[in-house]
Amino acid sequence: MKILISNDDGIESRGIFELAKAMREIGDVTIVAPETEQSAVGHAITMKYPLRVKKHFKNGEFFGYAVDGTPADCIKIGIRNILNEAPDIVISGINLGSNTAINIIYSGTVSAAREAAIMNVPAIAVSVANHEAVHFDYACMLSKMLVFKVAEYGLTNGTILNVNVPHLPYDEIKGTVITKQGKSKWADIYEKNIDPYGKDYYWLTGKLIETDTEMDTDQFAVKNGYASISPIHFDLTDYSEFENLQKWDLDNLIKSI
Amino acid sequence: MKILISNDDGIESRGIFELAKAMREIGDVTIVAPETEQSAVGHAITMKYPLRVKKHFKNGEFFGYAVDGTPADCIKIGIRNILNEAPDIVISGINLGSNTAINIIYSGTVSAAREAAIMNVPAIAVSVANHEAVHFDYACMLSKMLVFKVAEYGLTNGTILNVNVPHLPYDEIKGTVITKQGKSKWADIYEKNIDPYGKDYYWLTGKLIETDTEMDTDQFAVKNGYASISPIHFDLTDYSEFENLQKWDLDNLIKSI
Repeated sequence: MKILISNDDGIESRGIFELAKAMREIGDVTIVAPETEQSAVGHAITMKYPLRVKKHFKNGEFFGYAVDGTPADCIKIGIRNILNEAPDIVISGINLGSNTAINIIYSGTVSAAREAAIMNVPAIAVSVANHEAVHFDYACMLSKMLVFKVAEYGLTNGTILNVNVPHLPYDEIKGTVITKQGKSKWADIYEKNIDPYGKDYYWLTGKLIETDTEMDTDQFAVKNGYASISPIHFDLTDYSEFENLQKWDLDNLIKSI
Repeated sequence: MKILISNDDGIESRGIFELAKAMREIGDVTIVAPETEQSAVGHAITMKYPLRVKKHFKNGEFFGYAVDGTPADCIKIGIRNILNEAPDIVISGINLGSNTAINIIYSGTVSAAREAAIMNVPAIAVSVANHEAVHFDYACMLSKMLVFKVAEYGLTNGTILNVNVPHLPYDEIKGTVITKQGKSKWADIYEKNIDPYGKDYYWLTGKLIETDTEMDTDQFAVKNGYASISPIHFDLTDYSEFENLQKWDLDNLIKSI
C-alpha cells in the first residue's frame, strides 16, 4: 500500500514521526510535509511564489521531503511531482492539539487531507488533543486500523475522516465514536500591546467556548475520553436554504429597478 | 445599517473600492482589508505573529483600515477591536476572478464572509468572473439588493451567500440563479524551473476542468451569463457517511487486538 503522509506542525514534529513509524509497518510511506510549522493556515495554497522541495534527514537517514509551503501545497506537489502518481491513501498528522468543532475550518492538518480528497485520494486527518502530546499509541493503532478499513470499504468521493484522540494512555481511552463537527467556537481576544519600536500590535488569543453536550459531536466525545471519527466533506452548499432564497424573487425585483 | 467590508485582493483593489462606493449609498461603511493581496489563503488566521492595523488613505481621504494579515484576520479584528461590536452585515469583495466550484475552498474572499458567519454576522461574498474586471455595476446593484433581502429575511445561522457575477455589461447579464457549489476542479501543474542561483523551484499553475453542465451550479451559471447565488455553510459533516462508518464496528476490532 502506498501511503503519503503530511501534517501542519512541520516535518520535525514528533507527531509526524510517530505516524510515519506506525505506517511503515503496513505500507510504503512517503513523507511530504511543511518545512516549518503551518498551524491555522487553513486551506491556503501558494500561487504567488514558487515552492522549493528539500530532502529532509533525521539522524543521518532520509526521512522525507520538506516543502516551504502549506499543508495543501505538500499534498498537491507530493502527488503531482514527488510520487508522480496517486497514493492509495493520504494521512495527515498526528497533529498536536485537537481539530474539532470550528477548529476544522482553520486547520492545516484537515486541509491537507481535504486536498487529497479533492484529488480523489481517500484521506484521514489525525490529531491528539494536547499541544505537548506524549501519548501517540492509541492514535497510531487507530490510524492503522482505519487505513485497512478505508482500503476495504473505501470512502465516498470527497469524504475524509477527521480523527481526534484524547491525550490519555492507551488503556484509558474508552473507545471510538462516529461524530459530527461540533458547534463550539472561540471567544477571540486580541491582546493589544506596544512593540520595542513603540508601535501598537494586536495578538490573537482566546478561549474555546465548549457548547457541545452530545456524545456524537467531536469536541464532546474527545473531552469524555472517546476517540472521535467524523466524516467531513467539501461540498459547502447549504441545501436547506435553497427554498428560502428562491422566494426572494430577485429577477422580478431587478427588472423593476 | 452598519456594513463591514473586506476582501482578499487587498485594500488597494478596484473591487473593494467599487463595493464600498455602492454600500455607502445604503449604510454606514467600515472597511477592514488586507494590506496586500491574499488570494488563495483560504481560511488562514494569524496566531504566531501579532497584527498591525494602519489607517489607509485614498486621494488624501480616509478610506479604511489595512491589516497585515489574512481576510479572516480582518473580520476578526474588525469586529472585535475596530468596530468593537457586530455590524449588521459583512460583505467581502468584489473579488476579481470567480469563486465558484472548488475555488471556494481556497478563496480568501469567501473565508472572510465565512469568518463573519462564524461570529454570527450575516455575510455575503461577491466576485466578478474576470481577473482584469472593469464591469462592476451589476455586482454592485445585486450586492445592495441582497443586503436589503438579508436585512429583511435573515440568513440561517452560519449560512453565507456566495455571489458570482459574469464579467459582462449590465444589460447583458441574463438574471440570477440560486446555485450549488459546482464540482469542477483544477488540473494542477507545477512548472519546474531553475532560479537565478541554480536551485530548482516548482510554480503552481493549471487549468480548471469544467465538468459542471447544470444551470443550478455556480460555475455553469456564470459561464452562461447568469449571476450565481449559492448558500454556503461551515458544517462540514458528511451525514451520508454515518451509517457506513458505524458498520465498521471499530470498537470490537480494537478489543480483539
